[in-house]
Amino acid sequence: MHVKLLNSFVRPNINLFRTIVAQQLEYKEHGDPPSVVRLTNQTLQPIRADEVRYKVMAATINPADINTIQGIYPIKPPLPAVGGMEGVLRVEEVGSNVWDLAVGDWAIPSPAGFGTWRTDGIAPRTDLIKISNRLSIVQAATLAVNPSTAYRMLKDFVDLMPGDVVVQNGANSAVGQLVIQLCRHFNISTVNLIRDGKADEKETKDYLGELGADVVLTETEFKRKVRSLFEKMPSPKLALNCVSGRGIIYMAGCLAPKGKLVTYGGMSKQPLHVPTGAFIFKEIQLHGFWMTSWNRDAANAVKRRKMLDVLTQLSLEGKLLPVKYQLVPFKEYQQAIEATAAGHGRKKILVFEWCG
Amino acid sequence: MHVKLLNSFVRPNINLFRTIVAQQLEYKEHGDPPSVVRLTNQTLQPIRADEVRYKVMAATINPADINTIQGIYPIKPPLPAVGGMEGVLRVEEVGSNVWDLAVGDWAIPSPAGFGTWRTDGIAPRTDLIKISNRLSIVQAATLAVNPSTAYRMLKDFVDLMPGDVVVQNGANSAVGQLVIQLCRHFNISTVNLIRDGKADEKETKDYLGELGADVVLTETEFKRKVRSLFEKMPSPKLALNCVSGRGIIYMAGCLAPKGKLVTYGGMSKQPLHVPTGAFIFKEIQLHGFWMTSWNRDAANAVKRRKMLDVLTQLSLEGKLLPVKYQLVPFKEYQQAIEATAAGHGRKKILVFEWCG
Repeated sequence: MHVKLLNSFVRPNINLFRTIVAQQLEYKEHGDPPSVVRLTNQTLQPIRADEVRYKVMAATINPADINTIQGIYPIKPPLPAVGGMEGVLRVEEVGSNVWDLAVGDWAIPSPAGFGTWRTDGIAPRTDLIKISNRLSIVQAATLAVNPSTAYRMLKDFVDLMPGDVVVQNGANSAVGQLVIQLCRHFNISTVNLIRDGKADEKETKDYLGELGADVVLTETEFKRKVRSLFEKMPSPKLALNCVSGRGIIYMAGCLAPKGKLVTYGGMSKQPLHVPTGAFIFKEIQLHGFWMTSWNRDAANAVKRRKMLDVLTQLSLEGKLLPVKYQLVPFKEYQQAIEATAAGHGRKKILVFEWCG
Repeated sequence: MHVKLLNSFVRPNINLFRTIVAQQLEYKEHGDPPSVVRLTNQTLQPIRADEVRYKVMAATINPADINTIQGIYPIKPPLPAVGGMEGVLRVEEVGSNVWDLAVGDWAIPSPAGFGTWRTDGIAPRTDLIKISNRLSIVQAATLAVNPSTAYRMLKDFVDLMPGDVVVQNGANSAVGQLVIQLCRHFNISTVNLIRDGKADEKETKDYLGELGADVVLTETEFKRKVRSLFEKMPSPKLALNCVSGRGIIYMAGCLAPKGKLVTYGGMSKQPLHVPTGAFIFKEIQLHGFWMTSWNRDAANAVKRRKMLDVLTQLSLEGKLLPVKYQLVPFKEYQQAIEATAAGHGRKKILVFEWCG
């Protein structure tokens, strides 16, 4: 540490007289993302003592980014804003007061409105979280949002023990796939529900089985089998919901007494339907989970660091596979945004020329 | 206490050779209450050292009693059973080990399956909770279930402060009326929803207003006014639901961030409908409440004693009016059970000849 401090103090700042122009995907108003997002140039200023200059290695395009640009997400960065809340950065230059981050380190953004869709940027040190550079770039770029969401929902609502059961819908979602893998690691059984009428139903079931799913059923199969299913295995203590709608009646109804149903999405765009008796006589509880809100709470900083270390370790051991993705060169952002907005294709990850 | 102990030890047991025959409303099987409930005689045995003999002064007929006899309530006393879970008793004789209850004391039953629909009975001391005999018989007979339910729901889910707001549906229910009165006492504002199309809408609104309701609206009026209403007053931290169904969307949606909706009934016989976004972005929670379950938990014994003292005091001060009721002589039980099963008329309270 002393050596580092000394180095940063005496070394000549080699970038002092070089102008760096970042390219960034900027929107000046809310609206239809393919229309309002423009590629612009931004000349970087010299960094201040507490700041860090970085290059982006990879940045995801998530549905929440689309909704943020549309102005319908509760995250509203001041306009004009740069899109993207997730990605992995490489530190290029650190300010004179920054002692715990070095050139070449990898980091992920801490605040949700960070704006990762840019080639280069400057941020306060405190906006970055250092991560291992032994991860693959894709593992690193996707570490923060989906794996953390799955991890927290399994840890923070009920005390799950080996042999317990978790039921989830939208099991094929990114978070759903990570829930399956984390549960396998924790020796927790999963009952996984997928939409009815998927063209690739068989492949999806097989794939989730390979990830470690104990039971995979369509929603209709679940309704039919729910009674007999939980005669053979314990009733779930935890249900995870990213779909909502009428199907929740069966998920909430099958919970063990004092079980909890946690909602983190509403793909059906329908309200949740929950049986009244389950509240009164089984004392089930319904909660929501939003990773952004959890991250914002300063009280969670230490837990967050610990969680990222666990997730890094599991990723390095190959126990957490990222959701299937498609790499897109930064310049082809337009099509990638359009496809994500339309909700089709694999998860898009922007990669940058220098890094590709 | 020493005097009492001495008295019970030396006094001759005047009932030793007298046979007492209790009349009781008994059911030997589950089914339609007016058909399966029969008036039977039960010869009482001499009491044991830890037991108490009592006379019933008044006993309520609650919808939960009807459902218990039907076999559809989670309380299932072993058959044959005596109906009724609520009422007030007068102690007639105490066993030699009972030092903290004396002849003439009033008591209410502790366990839910007690069976209050009888003229006389014998119970373990531990099944009785002593209460003040300064209450009216009706206040005493109705102290345990509805006022306790209202009290606990206001105390155990969110920390309500003077000036906070509670919203409730079924505000005209017994619990609803008690919530209004307790909130007035605690300086908490209430927004009270009643069913649409009630013939006596005006009278109901006026009556709830007299009890202390700040706002009384039909469900349809609430949907229309919900936005403007909570511009004028703080958003509710707590919502109490005994109706369920689609209307819950508006009650849950109007909650303040981290607000809680507590369900204690489902009069509409519909599932709850809850907006997904309120879970995720406002972090509301849904809980259930069942007085019986709370009472069963031995950890709550001291809290229960304290609560009954508070409710007794408020009743004696005239701050808690019981719901409107109709006194029915014990012998006319048949019609009273029929009316309660059909869900019409005022709350029925059985009174006994010696006490009438």
